Amino acid sequence: MPRYKLTLEYDGTPFVGWQRQDNGVSVQEVLEEALRRFCGETVTTTAAGRTDAGVHALGQVVHVDLTKEWPAVRVREALNYHLQPHPVVVRTSEIAAPDFNARLSAKRRAYLYRILNRRAPAALDGHRVWHVAKPLDAAAMHAAAQVLVGRHDFSSFRASLCQAKSPVKTLDRLDVSQAGEEIHVTAEARSFLHHQVRNMVGTLKLVGEGKWTRKDVATALAAEDRRRSGPTAPPDGLYLVEVRY
Amino acid sequence: MPRYKLTLEYDGTPFVGWQRQDNGVSVQEVLEEALRRFCGETVTTTAAGRTDAGVHALGQVVHVDLTKEWPAVRVREALNYHLQPHPVVVRTSEIAAPDFNARLSAKRRAYLYRILNRRAPAALDGHRVWHVAKPLDAAAMHAAAQVLVGRHDFSSFRASLCQAKSPVKTLDRLDVSQAGEEIHVTAEARSFLHHQVRNMVGTLKLVGEGKWTRKDVATALAAEDRRRSGPTAPPDGLYLVEVRY
Repeated sequence: MPRYKLTLEYDGTPFVGWQRQDNGVSVQEVLEEALRRFCGETVTTTAAGRTDAGVHALGQVVHVDLTKEWPAVRVREALNYHLQPHPVVVRTSEIAAPDFNARLSAKRRAYLYRILNRRAPAALDGHRVWHVAKPLDAAAMHAAAQVLVGRHDFSSFRASLCQAKSPVKTLDRLDVSQAGEEIHVTAEARSFLHHQVRNMVGTLKLVGEGKWTRKDVATALAAEDRRRSGPTAPPDGLYLVEVRY
Repeated sequence: MPRYKLTLEYDGTPFVGWQRQDNGVSVQEVLEEALRRFCGETVTTTAAGRTDAGVHALGQVVHVDLTKEWPAVRVREALNYHLQPHPVVVRTSEIAAPDFNARLSAKRRAYLYRILNRRAPAALDGHRVWHVAKPLDAAAMHAAAQVLVGRHDFSSFRASLCQAKSPVKTLDRLDVSQAGEEIHVTAEARSFLHHQVRNMVGTLKLVGEGKWTRKDVATALAAEDRRRSGPTAPPDGLYLVEVRY
Protein backbone atom coordinates (compact mmCIF):
# COMPACT_ATOMS: atom_id res chain seq x y z
CA MET A 1 0.00 0.00 0.00
CA PRO A 2 2.10 2.92 -1.25
CA ARG A 3 2.21 6.20 0.60
CA TYR A 4 2.21 9.41 -1.45
CA LYS A 5 3.68 12.76 -0.45
CA LEU A 6 1.82 15.63 -2.13
CA THR A 7 2.81 19.29 -2.08
CA LEU A 8 -0.19 21.60 -2.44
CA GLU A 9 -0.76 25.23 -3.32
CA TYR A 10 -4.11 26.76 -2.46
CA ASP A 11 -6.01 29.98 -2.09
CA GLY A 12 -7.53 29.71 1.38
CA THR A 13 -10.20 32.37 0.79
CA PRO A 14 -13.19 30.10 0.01
CA PHE A 15 -12.34 27.43 2.59
CA VAL A 16 -13.08 26.89 6.28
CA GLY A 17 -9.43 25.85 6.57
CA TRP A 18 -7.46 22.69 5.89
CA GLN A 19 -9.42 20.44 8.22
CA ARG A 20 -12.85 18.96 7.59
CA GLN A 21 -15.55 20.86 9.46
CA ASP A 22 -19.33 20.86 9.49
CA ASN A 23 -19.67 24.56 8.70
CA GLY A 24 -18.28 24.69 5.18
CA VAL A 25 -15.93 23.35 2.55
CA SER A 26 -12.39 22.46 3.63
CA VAL A 27 -9.27 21.89 1.55
CA GLN A 28 -9.08 18.36 3.00
CA GLU A 29 -12.60 17.54 1.81
CA VAL A 30 -11.89 18.85 -1.69
CA LEU A 31 -8.64 16.87 -1.92
CA GLU A 32 -10.19 13.66 -0.61
CA GLU A 33 -13.09 14.04 -3.04
CA ALA A 34 -10.61 14.44 -5.92
CA LEU A 35 -8.80 11.30 -4.74
CA ARG A 36 -12.11 9.43 -4.65
CA ARG A 37 -12.96 10.54 -8.19
CA PHE A 38 -9.51 9.55 -9.39
CA CYS A 39 -9.17 6.08 -7.92
CA GLY A 40 -12.52 5.31 -6.30
CA GLU A 41 -11.02 5.00 -2.84
CA THR A 42 -12.30 6.76 0.27
CA VAL A 43 -9.14 7.88 2.01
CA THR A 44 -8.03 10.15 4.84
CA THR A 45 -5.25 12.64 4.15
CA THR A 46 -2.86 14.08 6.74
CA ALA A 47 -1.37 17.57 6.35
CA ALA A 48 1.73 19.18 7.83
CA GLY A 49 -0.15 22.32 8.81
CA ARG A 50 -3.81 22.65 9.75
CA THR A 51 -4.19 26.06 8.14
CA ASP A 52 -7.12 28.15 9.39
CA ALA A 53 -10.00 29.59 7.37
CA GLY A 54 -8.67 32.08 4.81
CA VAL A 55 -5.01 31.08 5.22
CA HIS A 56 -3.17 30.22 1.99
CA ALA A 57 -0.53 27.66 1.12
CA LEU A 58 2.29 27.68 -1.38
CA GLY A 59 3.80 24.44 -0.08
CA GLN A 60 1.43 22.51 2.18
CA VAL A 61 2.56 18.87 2.46
CA VAL A 62 0.09 16.00 2.71
CA HIS A 63 0.45 12.24 2.89
CA VAL A 64 -2.07 9.65 1.80
CA ASP A 65 -2.08 5.87 1.35
CA LEU A 66 -3.60 4.37 -1.80
CA THR A 67 -4.32 0.69 -2.36
CA LYS A 68 -2.98 0.61 -5.88
CA GLU A 69 0.47 1.89 -6.84
CA TRP A 70 0.07 4.64 -9.45
CA PRO A 71 2.98 6.50 -11.02
CA ALA A 72 3.49 9.64 -8.91
CA VAL A 73 3.16 11.91 -11.96
CA ARG A 74 -0.15 10.30 -12.84
CA VAL A 75 -1.46 11.03 -9.34
CA ARG A 76 -0.52 14.71 -9.68
CA GLU A 77 -2.07 15.10 -13.13
CA ALA A 78 -5.28 13.26 -12.22
CA LEU A 79 -5.75 15.22 -9.00
CA ASN A 80 -5.21 18.55 -10.75
CA TYR A 81 -7.92 17.53 -13.19
CA HIS A 82 -10.38 16.47 -10.48
CA LEU A 83 -9.60 19.40 -8.15
CA GLN A 84 -11.08 21.83 -10.64
CA PRO A 85 -12.68 24.36 -10.22
CA HIS A 86 -11.40 24.70 -6.66
CA PRO A 87 -8.31 26.91 -6.17
CA VAL A 88 -6.21 23.96 -5.01
CA VAL A 89 -3.42 22.35 -7.03
CA VAL A 90 -0.90 19.58 -6.49
CA ARG A 91 2.51 21.04 -7.25
CA THR A 92 4.45 17.82 -6.81
CA SER A 93 3.66 14.20 -6.05
CA GLU A 94 6.11 11.52 -5.01
CA ILE A 95 6.07 8.07 -3.46
CA ALA A 96 7.22 8.36 0.16
CA ALA A 97 8.64 5.89 2.65
CA PRO A 98 5.94 3.90 4.50
CA ASP A 99 6.83 5.63 7.77
CA PHE A 100 6.76 9.18 6.32
CA ASN A 101 4.20 11.29 8.16
CA ALA A 102 3.48 14.75 6.75
CA ARG A 103 2.62 16.10 10.19
CA LEU A 104 4.85 14.19 12.57
CA SER A 105 7.99 13.93 10.43
CA ALA A 106 8.15 17.69 9.74
CA LYS A 107 11.34 19.30 11.03
CA ARG A 108 10.68 22.89 9.97
CA ARG A 109 7.64 24.89 8.90
CA ALA A 110 8.03 28.25 7.15
CA TYR A 111 5.27 30.86 6.99
CA LEU A 112 5.13 34.19 5.16
CA TYR A 113 2.88 37.05 6.24
CA ARG A 114 2.25 39.82 3.68
CA ILE A 115 1.21 43.31 4.81
CA LEU A 116 0.27 45.79 2.05
CA ASN A 117 1.43 49.06 3.58
CA ARG A 118 0.09 51.96 1.51
CA ARG A 119 -2.93 54.23 1.53
CA ALA A 120 -4.78 52.53 -1.33
CA PRO A 121 -6.32 49.12 -0.62
CA ALA A 122 -5.35 46.09 -2.74
CA ALA A 123 -7.13 45.78 -6.07
CA LEU A 124 -5.23 42.77 -7.38
CA ASP A 125 -4.36 41.16 -4.05
CA GLY A 126 -7.61 41.43 -2.11
CA HIS A 127 -7.72 38.52 0.42
CA ARG A 128 -4.00 37.89 -0.27
CA VAL A 129 -2.56 40.60 1.98
CA TRP A 130 -3.40 42.49 5.14
CA HIS A 131 -3.96 46.09 4.11
CA VAL A 132 -2.51 48.54 6.66
CA ALA A 133 -2.89 52.12 5.49
CA LYS A 134 -0.69 53.85 8.10
CA PRO A 135 3.05 53.69 7.43
CA LEU A 136 4.82 50.99 9.44
CA ASP A 137 8.47 51.02 10.48
CA ALA A 138 9.72 47.65 9.20
CA ALA A 139 13.16 48.06 10.80
CA ALA A 140 11.62 48.63 14.25
CA MET A 141 9.35 45.61 13.71
CA HIS A 142 12.34 43.45 12.78
CA ALA A 143 14.31 44.55 15.85
CA ALA A 144 11.35 43.81 18.14
CA ALA A 145 10.75 40.46 16.43
CA GLN A 146 14.16 39.25 17.59
CA VAL A 147 12.84 39.26 21.17
CA LEU A 148 10.57 36.37 20.19
CA VAL A 149 13.23 34.22 18.52
CA GLY A 150 14.39 31.22 20.57
CA ARG A 151 12.79 28.80 23.00
CA HIS A 152 9.99 30.44 24.98
CA ASP A 153 6.61 29.88 26.57
CA PHE A 154 4.42 31.45 23.84
CA SER A 155 1.18 31.49 25.89
CA SER A 156 0.84 35.21 25.12
CA PHE A 157 0.59 34.38 21.41
CA ARG A 158 -1.57 31.27 21.69
CA ALA A 159 -5.22 31.05 20.68
CA SER A 160 -7.58 29.92 23.43
CA LEU A 161 -8.64 27.01 21.22
CA CYS A 162 -5.06 25.74 20.82
CA GLN A 163 -4.77 22.01 21.40
CA ALA A 164 -0.98 21.81 21.77
CA LYS A 165 0.19 19.99 24.92
CA SER A 166 2.77 22.63 25.77
CA PRO A 167 2.98 26.37 25.06
CA VAL A 168 6.78 26.08 24.89
CA LYS A 169 8.09 26.29 21.33
CA THR A 170 11.37 27.17 19.65
CA LEU A 171 11.03 29.97 17.12
CA ASP A 172 14.00 29.68 14.75
CA ARG A 173 13.45 32.77 12.67
CA LEU A 174 11.23 35.85 12.64
CA ASP A 175 12.36 38.35 10.01
CA VAL A 176 10.57 41.53 8.97
CA SER A 177 11.56 43.21 5.72
CA GLN A 178 10.27 45.86 3.34
CA ALA A 179 9.46 44.59 -0.18
CA GLY A 180 8.29 47.56 -2.23
CA GLU A 181 4.88 48.57 -0.89
CA GLU A 182 4.69 45.40 1.18
CA ILE A 183 6.14 44.34 4.50
CA HIS A 184 6.97 40.65 4.72
CA VAL A 185 7.20 38.71 7.95
CA THR A 186 8.91 35.33 7.65
CA ALA A 187 8.51 32.86 10.53
CA GLU A 188 10.20 29.49 10.87
CA ALA A 189 9.93 26.85 13.58
CA ARG A 190 9.54 23.11 13.95
CA SER A 191 5.93 23.81 14.91
CA PHE A 192 3.72 26.70 15.93
CA LEU A 193 0.86 27.15 18.39
CA HIS A 194 -2.61 27.91 17.03
CA HIS A 195 -2.70 31.53 15.72
CA GLN A 196 0.90 32.05 16.87
CA VAL A 197 2.10 33.66 13.63
CA ARG A 198 -0.97 35.89 13.31
CA ASN A 199 -0.73 36.94 16.97
CA MET A 200 2.97 37.75 16.58
CA VAL A 201 2.24 39.78 13.43
CA GLY A 202 -0.61 41.66 15.16
CA THR A 203 1.78 42.54 17.97
CA LEU A 204 4.60 43.59 15.64
CA LYS A 205 2.16 45.88 13.83
CA LEU A 206 1.81 47.83 17.11
CA VAL A 207 5.59 48.26 17.05
CA GLY A 208 5.51 49.33 13.40
CA GLU A 209 2.95 52.02 14.23
CA GLY A 210 5.13 53.32 17.08
CA LYS A 211 2.54 52.37 19.73
CA TRP A 212 4.72 49.62 21.23
CA THR A 213 8.46 49.30 21.79
CA ARG A 214 10.70 46.26 21.62
CA LYS A 215 10.52 46.21 25.41
CA ASP A 216 6.71 46.02 25.33
CA VAL A 217 7.02 42.89 23.19
CA ALA A 218 9.43 41.37 25.73
CA THR A 219 7.00 42.21 28.54
CA ALA A 220 4.09 40.67 26.63
CA LEU A 221 6.07 37.46 26.02
CA ALA A 222 7.12 37.22 29.68
CA ALA A 223 3.50 37.69 30.85
CA GLU A 224 2.53 34.28 29.38
CA ASP A 225 -1.00 35.62 29.01
CA ARG A 226 -2.84 36.06 25.71
CA ARG A 227 -4.53 39.24 26.94
CA ARG A 228 -1.14 40.97 27.19
CA SER A 229 -0.14 40.83 23.52
CA GLY A 230 -1.56 42.46 20.38
CA PRO A 231 -4.62 41.56 18.33
CA THR A 232 -4.73 38.63 15.89
CA ALA A 233 -3.76 39.65 12.34
CA PRO A 234 -6.33 38.57 9.72
CA PRO A 235 -5.82 35.27 7.86
CA ASP A 236 -5.66 36.97 4.44
CA GLY A 237 -1.93 37.72 4.55
CA LEU A 238 -0.73 34.32 5.81
CA TYR A 239 0.92 31.66 3.64
CA LEU A 240 2.29 28.25 4.58
CA VAL A 241 5.33 28.43 2.32
CA GLU A 242 7.36 25.31 2.94
CA VAL A 243 7.66 22.25 5.15
CA ARG A 244 11.06 20.61 5.51
CA TYR A 245 11.66 17.04 6.64
CA MET B 1 -11.76 73.74 -13.59
CA PRO B 2 -8.91 71.67 -12.19
CA ARG B 3 -7.65 68.57 -14.00
CA TYR B 4 -6.73 65.52 -11.94
CA LYS B 5 -4.22 62.82 -12.82
CA LEU B 6 -5.16 59.51 -11.21
CA THR B 7 -3.03 56.35 -11.15
CA LEU B 8 -5.15 53.20 -10.94
CA GLU B 9 -4.57 49.57 -10.05
CA TYR B 10 -7.21 47.06 -11.08
CA ASP B 11 -7.95 43.41 -11.53
CA GLY B 12 -9.28 43.20 -15.08
CA THR B 13 -11.00 39.83 -14.60
CA PRO B 14 -14.58 41.02 -14.00
CA PHE B 15 -14.50 43.84 -16.56
CA VAL B 16 -15.17 44.13 -20.30
CA GLY B 17 -12.03 46.29 -20.38
CA TRP B 18 -11.22 49.91 -19.63
CA GLN B 19 -13.67 51.42 -22.09
CA ARG B 20 -17.42 51.71 -21.65
CA GLN B 21 -19.28 49.07 -23.65
CA ASP B 22 -22.84 47.85 -23.88
CA ASN B 23 -22.03 44.23 -23.08
CA GLY B 24 -20.86 44.53 -19.48
CA VAL B 25 -19.20 46.54 -16.74
CA SER B 26 -16.08 48.52 -17.65
CA VAL B 27 -13.42 50.06 -15.42
CA GLN B 28 -14.30 53.47 -16.88
CA GLU B 29 -17.95 53.09 -15.88
CA VAL B 30 -17.05 52.05 -12.34
CA LEU B 31 -14.63 54.97 -11.96
CA GLU B 32 -17.05 57.54 -13.38
CA GLU B 33 -19.82 56.22 -11.10
CA ALA B 34 -17.48 56.61 -8.09
CA LEU B 35 -16.71 60.18 -9.20
CA ARG B 36 -20.45 60.89 -9.47
CA ARG B 37 -21.07 59.54 -5.97
CA PHE B 38 -18.19 61.56 -4.59
CA CYS B 39 -18.89 64.99 -6.08
CA GLY B 40 -22.21 64.67 -7.87
CA GLU B 41 -20.71 65.45 -11.27
CA THR B 42 -21.21 63.40 -14.43
CA VAL B 43 -17.76 63.36 -16.00
CA THR B 44 -15.84 61.58 -18.74
CA THR B 45 -12.45 60.11 -17.89
CA THR B 46 -9.59 59.53 -20.34
CA ALA B 47 -7.08 56.72 -19.82
CA ALA B 48 -3.55 56.19 -21.12
CA GLY B 49 -4.25 52.60 -22.17
CA ARG B 50 -7.57 51.15 -23.30
CA THR B 51 -6.93 47.78 -21.69
CA ASP B 52 -8.98 44.87 -23.06
CA ALA B 53 -11.34 42.57 -21.17
CA GLY B 54 -9.43 40.62 -18.54
CA VAL B 55 -6.26 42.74 -18.75
CA HIS B 56 -4.96 44.12 -15.44
CA ALA B 57 -3.34 47.39 -14.46
CA LEU B 58 -0.80 48.25 -11.81
CA GLY B 59 -0.36 51.80 -13.04
CA GLN B 60 -3.08 52.89 -15.46
CA VAL B 61 -3.16 56.69 -15.72
CA VAL B 62 -6.40 58.63 -16.13
CA HIS B 63 -7.26 62.31 -16.32
CA VAL B 64 -10.53 63.95 -15.40
CA ASP B 65 -11.77 67.52 -14.96
CA LEU B 66 -13.85 68.41 -11.92
CA THR B 67 -15.75 71.67 -11.44
CA LYS B 68 -14.67 72.16 -7.85
CA GLU B 69 -11.04 72.02 -6.70
CA TRP B 70 -10.71 69.30 -4.09
CA PRO B 71 -7.43 68.46 -2.36
CA ALA B 72 -5.84 65.65 -4.40
CA VAL B 73 -5.58 63.37 -1.35
CA ARG B 74 -9.28 63.84 -0.66
CA VAL B 75 -10.11 62.73 -4.22
CA ARG B 76 -8.05 59.56 -3.81
CA GLU B 77 -9.58 58.67 -0.44
CA ALA B 78 -13.15 59.39 -1.53
CA LEU B 79 -12.80 57.41 -4.76
CA ASN B 80 -11.30 54.43 -2.94
CA TYR B 81 -14.32 54.50 -0.66
CA HIS B 82 -16.86 54.74 -3.50
CA LEU B 83 -15.05 52.24 -5.76
CA GLN B 84 -15.81 49.42 -3.33
CA PRO B 85 -16.49 46.53 -3.81
CA HIS B 86 -14.99 46.64 -7.30
CA PRO B 87 -11.32 45.53 -7.61
CA VAL B 88 -10.23 49.02 -8.68
CA VAL B 89 -8.21 51.42 -6.52
CA VAL B 90 -6.69 54.86 -6.95
CA ARG B 91 -3.03 54.55 -6.00
CA THR B 92 -2.21 58.24 -6.36
CA SER B 93 -4.08 61.41 -7.20
CA GLU B 94 -2.57 64.75 -8.14
CA ILE B 95 -3.62 68.02 -9.72
CA ALA B 96 -2.23 68.13 -13.27
CA ALA B 97 -1.55 70.94 -15.71
CA PRO B 98 -4.65 71.97 -17.71
CA ASP B 99 -3.07 70.63 -20.90
CA PHE B 100 -2.08 67.26 -19.44
CA ASN B 101 -3.73 64.45 -21.39
CA ALA B 102 -3.38 60.92 -19.99
CA ARG B 103 -3.57 59.42 -23.46
CA LEU B 104 -1.94 61.97 -25.76
CA SER B 105 0.84 63.18 -23.44
CA ALA B 106 2.15 59.67 -22.70
CA LYS B 107 5.77 59.17 -23.80
CA ARG B 108 6.23 55.57 -22.73
CA ARG B 109 3.93 52.69 -21.81
CA ALA B 110 5.27 49.62 -20.01
CA TYR B 111 3.50 46.27 -19.96
CA LEU B 112 4.33 43.06 -18.11
CA TYR B 113 3.16 39.63 -19.27
CA ARG B 114 3.33 36.78 -16.73
CA ILE B 115 3.51 33.16 -17.88
CA LEU B 116 3.27 30.49 -15.17
CA ASN B 117 5.50 27.76 -16.59
CA ARG B 118 5.04 24.58 -14.58
CA ARG B 119 2.91 21.47 -14.74
CA ALA B 120 0.45 22.47 -12.02
CA PRO B 121 -2.06 25.21 -12.85
CA ALA B 122 -2.20 28.36 -10.70
CA ALA B 123 -4.16 28.04 -7.47
CA LEU B 124 -3.41 31.49 -6.08
CA ASP B 125 -2.93 33.33 -9.37
CA GLY B 126 -5.80 32.05 -11.48
CA HIS B 127 -6.69 34.79 -14.03
CA ARG B 128 -3.42 36.58 -13.15
CA VAL B 129 -1.06 34.50 -15.29
CA TRP B 130 -1.09 32.45 -18.48
CA HIS B 131 -0.53 28.85 -17.45
CA VAL B 132 1.77 27.03 -19.89
CA ALA B 133 2.49 23.50 -18.71
CA LYS B 134 5.26 22.60 -21.16
CA PRO B 135 8.73 23.93 -20.29
CA LEU B 136 9.63 27.07 -22.23
CA ASP B 137 13.16 28.23 -23.08
CA ALA B 138 13.19 31.81 -21.77
CA ALA B 139 16.67 32.53 -23.17
CA ALA B 140 15.58 31.54 -26.69
CA MET B 141 12.44 33.65 -26.31
CA HIS B 142 14.53 36.65 -25.25
CA ALA B 143 16.91 36.26 -28.19
CA ALA B 144 14.00 36.04 -30.64
CA ALA B 145 12.27 38.99 -29.01
CA GLN B 146 15.16 41.25 -29.99
CA VAL B 147 14.12 40.83 -33.64
CA LEU B 148 10.98 42.85 -32.82
CA VAL B 149 12.73 45.73 -31.02
CA GLY B 150 12.97 48.94 -33.03
CA ARG B 151 10.80 50.75 -35.58
CA HIS B 152 8.77 48.31 -37.68
CA ASP B 153 5.49 47.77 -39.45
CA PHE B 154 3.79 45.57 -36.83
CA SER B 155 0.85 44.51 -39.03
CA SER B 156 1.68 40.87 -38.26
CA PHE B 157 0.98 41.54 -34.58
CA ARG B 158 -2.05 43.80 -35.00
CA ALA B 159 -5.64 42.82 -34.19
CA SER B 160 -8.08 43.15 -37.07
CA LEU B 161 -10.14 45.56 -34.93
CA CYS B 162 -7.18 47.89 -34.36
CA GLN B 163 -8.08 51.54 -34.96
CA ALA B 164 -4.53 52.96 -35.14
CA LYS B 165 -3.84 55.05 -38.23
CA SER B 166 -0.50 53.40 -38.92
CA PRO B 167 0.87 49.91 -38.18
CA VAL B 168 4.35 51.40 -37.79
CA LYS B 169 5.47 51.60 -34.17
CA THR B 170 8.76 51.81 -32.33
CA LEU B 171 9.20 49.04 -29.79
CA ASP B 172 11.80 50.24 -27.28
CA ARG B 173 12.16 47.12 -25.18
CA LEU B 174 11.03 43.49 -25.24
CA ASP B 175 12.73 41.47 -22.53
CA VAL B 176 12.02 37.87 -21.55
CA SER B 177 13.31 36.59 -18.23
CA GLN B 178 12.81 33.64 -15.90
CA ALA B 179 11.44 34.54 -12.45
CA GLY B 180 11.20 31.35 -10.44
CA GLU B 181 8.35 29.30 -11.93
CA GLU B 182 7.28 32.27 -14.06
CA ILE B 183 8.49 33.76 -17.31
CA HIS B 184 8.11 37.51 -17.51
CA VAL B 185 7.88 39.46 -20.75
CA THR B 186 8.40 43.21 -20.40
CA ALA B 187 7.39 45.42 -23.32
CA GLU B 188 7.94 49.18 -23.58
CA ALA B 189 6.95 51.60 -26.33
CA ARG B 190 5.42 55.03 -26.77
CA SER B 191 2.29 53.22 -27.91
CA PHE B 192 1.17 49.78 -29.02
CA LEU B 193 -1.26 48.45 -31.61
CA HIS B 194 -4.36 46.61 -30.43
CA HIS B 195 -3.35 43.15 -29.10
CA GLN B 196 0.28 43.81 -30.06
CA VAL B 197 1.76 42.65 -26.75
CA ARG B 198 -0.45 39.56 -26.56
CA ASN B 199 0.32 38.66 -30.19
CA MET B 200 4.06 39.06 -29.59
CA VAL B 201 3.83 36.89 -26.47
CA GLY B 202 1.84 34.22 -28.33
CA THR B 203 4.54 34.18 -31.00
CA LEU B 204 7.42 34.06 -28.51
CA LYS B 205 5.74 31.10 -26.82
CA LEU B 206 6.21 29.18 -30.08
CA VAL B 207 9.92 29.96 -29.82
CA GLY B 208 9.99 28.90 -26.16
CA GLU B 209 8.47 25.54 -27.11
CA GLY B 210 11.09 25.03 -29.80
CA LYS B 211 8.50 25.13 -32.61
CA TRP B 212 9.75 28.42 -34.00
CA THR B 213 13.22 29.94 -34.36
CA ARG B 214 14.36 33.52 -34.10
CA LYS B 215 14.38 33.57 -37.89
CA ASP B 216 10.72 32.52 -38.04
CA VAL B 217 9.89 35.56 -35.92
CA ALA B 218 11.81 37.80 -38.33
CA THR B 219 9.94 36.24 -41.27
CA ALA B 220 6.59 36.74 -39.53
CA LEU B 221 7.40 40.41 -38.84
CA ALA B 222 8.51 41.01 -42.44
CA ALA B 223 5.31 39.40 -43.79
CA GLU B 224 3.21 42.31 -42.42
CA ASP B 225 0.28 39.91 -42.24
CA ARG B 226 -1.49 38.89 -39.00
CA ARG B 227 -2.00 35.35 -40.32
CA ARG B 228 1.77 34.79 -40.36
CA SER B 229 2.48 35.24 -36.63
CA GLY B 230 1.49 33.18 -33.58
CA PRO B 231 -1.81 33.05 -31.68
CA THR B 232 -2.97 35.78 -29.31
CA ALA B 233 -1.94 35.09 -25.71
CA PRO B 234 -4.86 35.26 -23.24
CA PRO B 235 -5.53 38.54 -21.40
CA ASP B 236 -5.03 36.96 -17.95
CA GLY B 237 -1.25 37.45 -17.84
CA LEU B 238 -1.13 41.04 -19.09
CA TYR B 239 -0.56 44.08 -16.84
CA LEU B 240 -0.29 47.76 -17.76
CA VAL B 241 2.52 48.54 -15.34
CA GLU B 242 3.47 52.15 -15.87
CA VAL B 243 2.90 55.16 -18.09
CA ARG B 244 5.59 57.81 -18.29
CA TYR B 245 5.10 61.42 -19.42
